[in-house]
Amino acid sequence: MITDLLAAIASEQIDLIDLTAPLTEKTPVLALPEPFKNSQPFRLELISRYDEDGPAWYWNNIHAGEHTGTHVDAPNHWVTGKDGLDVSQVPLRSLIAPAVVLDVTDRVAENPDFLLEIADVEEWQRTNGPVPEGGWLLYRTGWGSRSKNSADFLNAGSTPGISPECARWLADSGLVGLGVETVGTDAGQAATLDPAFPCHHHLQGAGKLGLTQLQNLDRLPATGIALAVLPLPIVGGSGSPARVIAMVDR
Amino acid sequence: MITDLLAAIASEQIDLIDLTAPLTEKTPVLALPEPFKNSQPFRLELISRYDEDGPAWYWNNIHAGEHTGTHVDAPNHWVTGKDGLDVSQVPLRSLIAPAVVLDVTDRVAENPDFLLEIADVEEWQRTNGPVPEGGWLLYRTGWGSRSKNSADFLNAGSTPGISPECARWLADSGLVGLGVETVGTDAGQAATLDPAFPCHHHLQGAGKLGLTQLQNLDRLPATGIALAVLPLPIVGGSGSPARVIAMVDR
Ligand SMILES: Nc1ccccc1C(=O)C(=O)O
Ligand SMILES: Nc1ccccc1C(=O)C(=O)O
Repeated sequence: MITDLLAAIASEQIDLIDLTAPLTEKTPVLALPEPFKNSQPFRLELISRYDEDGPAWYWNNIHAGEHTGTHVDAPNHWVTGKDGLDVSQVPLRSLIAPAVVLDVTDRVAENPDFLLEIADVEEWQRTNGPVPEGGWLLYRTGWGSRSKNSADFLNAGSTPGISPECARWLADSGLVGLGVETVGTDAGQAATLDPAFPCHHHLQGAGKLGLTQLQNLDRLPATGIALAVLPLPIVGGSGSPARVIAMVDR
Repeated sequence: MITDLLAAIASEQIDLIDLTAPLTEKTPVLALPEPFKNSQPFRLELISRYDEDGPAWYWNNIHAGEHTGTHVDAPNHWVTGKDGLDVSQVPLRSLIAPAVVLDVTDRVAENPDFLLEIADVEEWQRTNGPVPEGGWLLYRTGWGSRSKNSADFLNAGSTPGISPECARWLADSGLVGLGVETVGTDAGQAATLDPAFPCHHHLQGAGKLGLTQLQNLDRLPATGIALAVLPLPIVGGSGSPARVIAMVDR
């Protein structure tokens, strides 16, 4: 199997698609209201650049947040998953796993506060089959096209998400996680929903993963995706920036 | 192909093996002598933990180095590769690629300053075939077993590596990179070799990648490995901590 896989990659019968947002000082970061504390922005700090501090080498220190850029939310990120896994403990078969794409770009274009409902997932399943046992649902909203500009991307708290009922449905499913294009798995208005932050509440509570700030979902088919979601193994961490690569048949 | 791959992973016909060292405040970090500047150690800084700063959530800021723990060295890390790719620009087909393992554990057990020679690679090739075009050479020294203890791991600068001639041979080969178990791709004594830091000098100069602080190489066969080496896409970065997963037929 491995020999065939390597041959298919080398001969470009398999496409590799990068779903990760580039990390820069401009990477949009969640801004919670007072009195909550927020993550530091992403920043590099020069150590040396072919200079007296390191004549032959260039390198930087990194300052970031566990929940910055394209990142994984581990179960212990939320109080409902407090005794669940940290990001270093997530099984590898959750990190290299099947994925499917549910596309609501048209509806989000009309309403940035759009919330996905159970009926939308059921309709998707009638065409595409069940969401994958042990796999990921990638929620395509078109929001990734705004990620170059932090103000557009955060949109004053008006960003699409998932209804509380649908979040609970996803948490009860066989999925390992939910991937989104927005700054977090929850809608911009999620603090006002019941429960507040329903995706975090239900998904992390069920031991499932979140995955955010994805790009290039428009380059994926609805099904037939092998997804590599590789966070750093931060011991005790609540999440981690992750590199996310999709493999699809050409 | 993708359907077969997913079925083989789910049914455990494919083993997934984590080659990444866990990230903690104890993760060993390179210590260059004065007057050179060094990387900060890995450290988490609490933002909130189900408390007044975030009642339902736990998260941290991350302080780290681009070259901390299991990490990728990009071509622009070294002055010889100054105009080469940064870590965000590395092609995906270098990051999901074949790998082979060359094992010198026995010789390193006798001599921690052991340097690999061209003749050793040639001998390996007589048994195992050529090193993979577009793939990785993983250099197994047994050093990973010391990584729990920083003093043992750094060993006062006495750690195995590659001779200057062999580093040049690898840089002239079809490999995309060299992976090692030690703190850097170069030997502890590499500052005294000619050229200094020959792996960095030759490999980055040839546009190739380094990959360090690997673990669990003892669980891999010599050939037939698909390797996912996923660094964060740090724009302008000289490298990045990376998650590294090997896929092998069971
Ligand atoms: N919604 C949140 C509320 C508090 C903390 C983090 C979040 C996230 O979205 C996140 O996980 O990125
Ligand atoms: N040898 C070095 C000298 C200077 C800077 C970094 C290194 C590394 O090994 C590295 O890339 O981790």
